[in-house]
Amino acid sequence: MNPIEIIRKKRSGEKLNREEIETLINGYLNGRVADYQMSAFLMSVYFQKMDFEETAILTEVMLRSGVVVDLSKVPGIKVDKHSTGGVGDKVSLILAPMVAACGVPVPMISGRGLGHTGGTLDKLESIPGFRTNLSLKEYEEVIRKTGLVLIGQTNEIAPADKRMYALRDVTATVESIPLIAGSIMSKKLAEGIDALVLDVKVGRGAFMQNEADAVELAKALIGVGTQFGKKVIGFITGMDQPLGFAVGNWLETVECLDCLKGKDIPDLMEVTYILSGAMVMLGGKAKSIEEGIEKCKETIQNGKAWNKFKELVAIQGGDVSYLEDVSKYPKSKHIVEIKSEMDGYIKNIDALEVGFVSIMLGAGRMKVDDEIDLKAGIIFNKKVGDKISVGENLAVVYTDKSDDLRTSIERLKKSIFISAEQIIPNKIIHSLVDEQGVHPWYGCG
Amino acid sequence: MNPIEIIRKKRSGEKLNREEIETLINGYLNGRVADYQMSAFLMSVYFQKMDFEETAILTEVMLRSGVVVDLSKVPGIKVDKHSTGGVGDKVSLILAPMVAACGVPVPMISGRGLGHTGGTLDKLESIPGFRTNLSLKEYEEVIRKTGLVLIGQTNEIAPADKRMYALRDVTATVESIPLIAGSIMSKKLAEGIDALVLDVKVGRGAFMQNEADAVELAKALIGVGTQFGKKVIGFITGMDQPLGFAVGNWLETVECLDCLKGKDIPDLMEVTYILSGAMVMLGGKAKSIEEGIEKCKETIQNGKAWNKFKELVAIQGGDVSYLEDVSKYPKSKHIVEIKSEMDGYIKNIDALEVGFVSIMLGAGRMKVDDEIDLKAGIIFNKKVGDKISVGENLAVVYTDKSDDLRTSIERLKKSIFISAEQIIPNKIIHSLVDEQGVHPWYGCG
Repeated sequence: MNPIEIIRKKRSGEKLNREEIETLINGYLNGRVADYQMSAFLMSVYFQKMDFEETAILTEVMLRSGVVVDLSKVPGIKVDKHSTGGVGDKVSLILAPMVAACGVPVPMISGRGLGHTGGTLDKLESIPGFRTNLSLKEYEEVIRKTGLVLIGQTNEIAPADKRMYALRDVTATVESIPLIAGSIMSKKLAEGIDALVLDVKVGRGAFMQNEADAVELAKALIGVGTQFGKKVIGFITGMDQPLGFAVGNWLETVECLDCLKGKDIPDLMEVTYILSGAMVMLGGKAKSIEEGIEKCKETIQNGKAWNKFKELVAIQGGDVSYLEDVSKYPKSKHIVEIKSEMDGYIKNIDALEVGFVSIMLGAGRMKVDDEIDLKAGIIFNKKVGDKISVGENLAVVYTDKSDDLRTSIERLKKSIFISAEQIIPNKIIHSLVDEQGVHPWYGCG
Repeated sequence: MNPIEIIRKKRSGEKLNREEIETLINGYLNGRVADYQMSAFLMSVYFQKMDFEETAILTEVMLRSGVVVDLSKVPGIKVDKHSTGGVGDKVSLILAPMVAACGVPVPMISGRGLGHTGGTLDKLESIPGFRTNLSLKEYEEVIRKTGLVLIGQTNEIAPADKRMYALRDVTATVESIPLIAGSIMSKKLAEGIDALVLDVKVGRGAFMQNEADAVELAKALIGVGTQFGKKVIGFITGMDQPLGFAVGNWLETVECLDCLKGKDIPDLMEVTYILSGAMVMLGGKAKSIEEGIEKCKETIQNGKAWNKFKELVAIQGGDVSYLEDVSKYPKSKHIVEIKSEMDGYIKNIDALEVGFVSIMLGAGRMKVDDEIDLKAGIIFNKKVGDKISVGENLAVVYTDKSDDLRTSIERLKKSIFISAEQIIPNKIIHSLVDEQGVHPWYGCG
């Protein structure tokens, strides 16, 4: 089968079969399909989309381009969580030890931050010594011993996805739901999971800017998971303001430590509990999401989640003494408090802008190979709906960069909107999506 | 400006400005834009199109990537004709000497046959010794001396088009009206013309399968020409059955010689006269298309067109003795007459199928670098509407190929449909398109 004919078929809006998708993707890996043909194909998919069946085949071909980890010897129902990414999204670091402490194994392959969104790997690596580049053999050993493991994508996992993602990044073909679904699910299915909980974020700081797209992506991910016999449920959650107070790798890790030790940061913990509760339910350790949430809360109260996190850090080579005493950590050269210039209520904190400011401060990357400063970032003192007075602390900026500091601070100030009127924040959990469809979420617990 | 942003902008349906189009195309030529980015861009244009202004800028940037011939020192209004290609389309060989004989200079850069459609260069090269690879210096000398010249695209002419066309060919991005218009017009504008007549073919054997697409292409070509201050008019003409009786390079050249010496082949000469008449009018040597047609007919009657063609062949290195005595030409190994198996009327001769059969016979190419047999082809004995009896000659096949001969003949037979009922052929000139729009064409002369 000629790749040009396959591109033409998709371009014309026709459905591709397994043989055609295999010809393109395997051909791309072995050099029979040129990168300029793959990029033309990807752009065709952007316009003509793929249905669940095509997306599942795409995912499978990408998945089978590499190793699929077999965790069948690890007892229990293995459950992971995937977030489509946001600003201040540090949920994995709290959720994984909680769920593992409930007896549900959590095998997690995470990504790095890119653009305005952060990544779990960078946050973990802010802990001195923490190794995210475990081999797949070590990965299996760690989850067997501790019930959880957090690593980065290895070269053995879905190499087709790695190459296709790199190509999409430079050809404006990232924003395609079937391609996103294939990319996410080919990596998640390679982990050896039995079930998956999705956090599909929507809003200014998210990849999906509107509810309909977020739901469509959730449905595509669930559709693919179902084709592979995995139980997948998703939550649509808000990403208008950063999640929690901290943005920046070490700063976020410290916030997670606080939460693991019992601090309640409402928006962050609401999202963390709903996702972890669903994971515990899917892992067979609770009959409902609500019961799962209660079990997770217990792991915070009885210190099991905190201990599980320390166990994980230790086994993956991290220096636990930094968790015990965060004051040991190196300090940023500039620590600047931003004060409010008016009285009122926080109306909005533009997460997208905050993400870009954090890059300017050194906490994030514009390009994959940019170096980052793990201690840089922002700690907000107020969230949407909070009352603020003139001169009161809005946020604190942490950076080693002297050059753009003034510009960064100005841009950050402009990203915080203050209103004279009282504001009621939007609810953060919008809906639950499962095989049956979309269900409004009225909260629980 | 980042090429990814430009691709994204077109992908989103936005209009590109000059700087953006230059960044992409010049960047592609100098290596700053990768081929996989150009192919993603081309696919975006396929889906999101370009308006006349964008198409004109695209054309100009492609045009300026190479040499633009300056024929201002050659007296007279220089007029060329472009056909979008068909089966048996040999019009240029009759039209160019007629128009030149009327005193209108005809500078013509033509293409080769590819796929089911033939090309003027191959027909000219079927004349022993005829050189189509003149330098641009020779090109200017020939038109100055004889009032016409016919060559192939040199490396100096629109190199951006050459590279982009090669990429479109392997990425299923050929069928895009702004890209086709840019490709055609960047080459035509490089010739040094003042005006252009278009033959936009529509039907089974044409690139455009329906009237609306043909009109849209004609309008795009006229739109671009107008932006460059050139007078362009187009005719939409039918390409359901092959034009004339002959298909195949030397066989078509012989048919042209017959016409230049006064033979009337109705469909072929109707198309040739309308186009040449319009050229003579645009060249200022007639007040109307009708008067232009009359002048062209005179050049046949008084032998001036025939003499002009011999003059052209001689100056471009061709052996005129083959024109004087076509029986000198080498003969095909197999010359097979196809006889009708029923009585009736020719209902249709599928030009697309005839094109593919002619490739099987050796007369055409599937790929750019395929070798062709210049003497191979088909001569039909009947056209749509003609009466036919059992055992009567339908067509004669000429080929050196023994292998697929039976298959070719069977396929050719199947491409000729015979009906018991009398058939009235469709009219061949559908409409005239100019800056004002589409005008029905009721025939003339």
